[in-house]
Amino acid sequence: MGGAASSLKDRCALVGTGETEYSYRSDRPVVALEIEACLKAIDDAGLKARDIDGIITVGARPSQPLPSEMAHYLGIRDLSFAPQMSLGGASVCAAVGYAAMAVDAGIANNVLCFYGSGSLGGSRRDRASVAADSIIRPAISSLVNREFEAPFGFVNANCIAAMEARRYMHETGATTRQFGMVAVIMRKHAMLNDNALARTPITLDDHQNSRMIVNPLRLLDITQHADGAVALVVSSAESAKALRQPPVYIMGFAEGHGPMPMDTVSRLNIMEYGVKYAAAKVFEMASVIHKDIDVVEMFEPYTFHLLRYLEDLGFCKYGEAGFFVEEGRIELGRDLPVNTNGGQLAGAWIEGWNQVLEAVRQLRGHAGPAQVKDARIALAASWGGSAGHLGSVVILRR
Amino acid sequence: MGGAASSLKDRCALVGTGETEYSYRSDRPVVALEIEACLKAIDDAGLKARDIDGIITVGARPSQPLPSEMAHYLGIRDLSFAPQMSLGGASVCAAVGYAAMAVDAGIANNVLCFYGSGSLGGSRRDRASVAADSIIRPAISSLVNREFEAPFGFVNANCIAAMEARRYMHETGATTRQFGMVAVIMRKHAMLNDNALARTPITLDDHQNSRMIVNPLRLLDITQHADGAVALVVSSAESAKALRQPPVYIMGFAEGHGPMPMDTVSRLNIMEYGVKYAAAKVFEMASVIHKDIDVVEMFEPYTFHLLRYLEDLGFCKYGEAGFFVEEGRIELGRDLPVNTNGGQLAGAWIEGWNQVLEAVRQLRGHAGPAQVKDARIALAASWGGSAGHLGSVVILRR
Repeated sequence: MGGAASSLKDRCALVGTGETEYSYRSDRPVVALEIEACLKAIDDAGLKARDIDGIITVGARPSQPLPSEMAHYLGIRDLSFAPQMSLGGASVCAAVGYAAMAVDAGIANNVLCFYGSGSLGGSRRDRASVAADSIIRPAISSLVNREFEAPFGFVNANCIAAMEARRYMHETGATTRQFGMVAVIMRKHAMLNDNALARTPITLDDHQNSRMIVNPLRLLDITQHADGAVALVVSSAESAKALRQPPVYIMGFAEGHGPMPMDTVSRLNIMEYGVKYAAAKVFEMASVIHKDIDVVEMFEPYTFHLLRYLEDLGFCKYGEAGFFVEEGRIELGRDLPVNTNGGQLAGAWIEGWNQVLEAVRQLRGHAGPAQVKDARIALAASWGGSAGHLGSVVILRR
Repeated sequence: MGGAASSLKDRCALVGTGETEYSYRSDRPVVALEIEACLKAIDDAGLKARDIDGIITVGARPSQPLPSEMAHYLGIRDLSFAPQMSLGGASVCAAVGYAAMAVDAGIANNVLCFYGSGSLGGSRRDRASVAADSIIRPAISSLVNREFEAPFGFVNANCIAAMEARRYMHETGATTRQFGMVAVIMRKHAMLNDNALARTPITLDDHQNSRMIVNPLRLLDITQHADGAVALVVSSAESAKALRQPPVYIMGFAEGHGPMPMDTVSRLNIMEYGVKYAAAKVFEMASVIHKDIDVVEMFEPYTFHLLRYLEDLGFCKYGEAGFFVEEGRIELGRDLPVNTNGGQLAGAWIEGWNQVLEAVRQLRGHAGPAQVKDARIALAASWGGSAGHLGSVVILRR
């Protein structure tokens, strides 16, 4: 934070969203999915492609289109703002913030941000934690200190997550049944979402009996790869008024990069995620307190992450989220609805981009059967890096 | 531009610069060069590493440190702003602009931007236009439509540049002697710069007799690979006053992404670069006219690019820059000194980052024998993409 004070609260708005159908294996190239999501988001806002003058991409895979390339595909003549995100899974909320910065600075009028994941042609991002994949392969390659970690069995993201989960259980008394409750509730929420991938209900026993992947993590603790794309458009609060959808104002955004170093084994505290650093900043910028938040949408790669983020975000004290969730308090209709679309676990794993989209849907009042009554303020959180050292958070209001 | 109006003029300043020694082949890993440049820039500003809360990197090679990684190397605890540039050689001026946006928005106080190039361990960026390399290799890989271009001989950046140069000669009557004058003047300027790589004077005849690489481009038309790193620190104009160096205020910044498509053969006009789009925006933001500019520092990969950028930047009409340069008017002491450090051709090819550093040096009055008398306003321009479709420009004042 360093004492900087931002004046960007409520100055910009999310005005357009677009998503494709999600699937476990699409037969379309990822760029086609991305173009579809981008065109939908632009249209949703009531804009034309020529109105877009900023594009933010996520630098994830070699085949990722650069901002210029996407501009070309969409028929946009020039761009005035085109950074690439380097925050992995923590990119989405930070991207929304960067877009707001550029719009508020008068550098661009309408900034398009997008992310897609597609398996066709090997272009799907190198995400290592797919339970269905039995092959051993390196975890997120650039971040893991493979030389020193691989010999000890840290061969993919599941291994890192399992160590964190075990430590969390050891320190707090959290149980795998509490992890299981996350899976159960995500399935319940997914059943209300036509675009969710896992819409079959599960019980806590189903979770407890599911195949062990890396102790203590079972199949139903782990998000599965999905194909699909999400796009978002950010404009000024002023222009938002004239556009097609009810504006969703950006009250605050922040990213956090602690704790470093990023390789798991040399971290001082594997229980501390970047989300915690981002949370302190975003609540200050938005000038709200936790009880003002009506709904939370977060990127949860594993069940227990949802517990940890509730803590790092300040909704529960360290070690208490398991009990909070066990009581069902994150279900729709209860104290603090979380991941009303089924999240990454049961909705679709789109690096958390679909969670920001769901936050917008809730604040527009367009969430149908999953609508949180009178949702006024939403918080969305994203998480990245090989072991969660990167985090970004937005607070939005209708 | 799209009608956005920016209020960022003079709100931020370049407060620190750092550069390493440049060489044709360093025995140090590129990250060591980058760390050295970063530490120098932070110290030059009179700051400590812990004061840095934003880092911008250039996404160029797989071994490029992410912002978080550089933060870790420098002992920085957290970052609030960390985009990655996707503009290739056009990154530097845009990075300065993004840093200013974040500082002005109150998201970060002191933003560090850096770029390094190193040959050790194969980590040097895939820059294809090295005259000394006789092997045929793909041009900047992601941007060139190799499938359709390679069969026609477009195997590296020299080929693309040669086609542009030939077209330019055809359309305007420019001569290779005019190209040669650029090389001669860059050498003259380099002789005043202790850190320049090519400090031997050359004559126009030397240029005309140098080995033909791709007709009409000769050895002395082409920049050579260099190893080294540059770092820059951006803070608010307000904080700049209390720091170590005379502040260099950022009057304007802009990027341009036209014309697309980016593959050379399908471009509508191979004579049009992104710099042109950026130039229109940056002069508007800075509210200055061309004759206000005391010195120009630009990234010139090839001699004839310097002519074309003078035109795209609006200092000369299309086709007139060759005559302007032939008369020596870009030399120190003349109408419009350009690349007072010897530029990329004779100084060092650091993707134009050293040109922004030289602009700062000029405006601080620290340029020694290369000082432009009473330099008050400088323009720096950078250029990227496989065929110059990306450009970014800053206008700075003392």
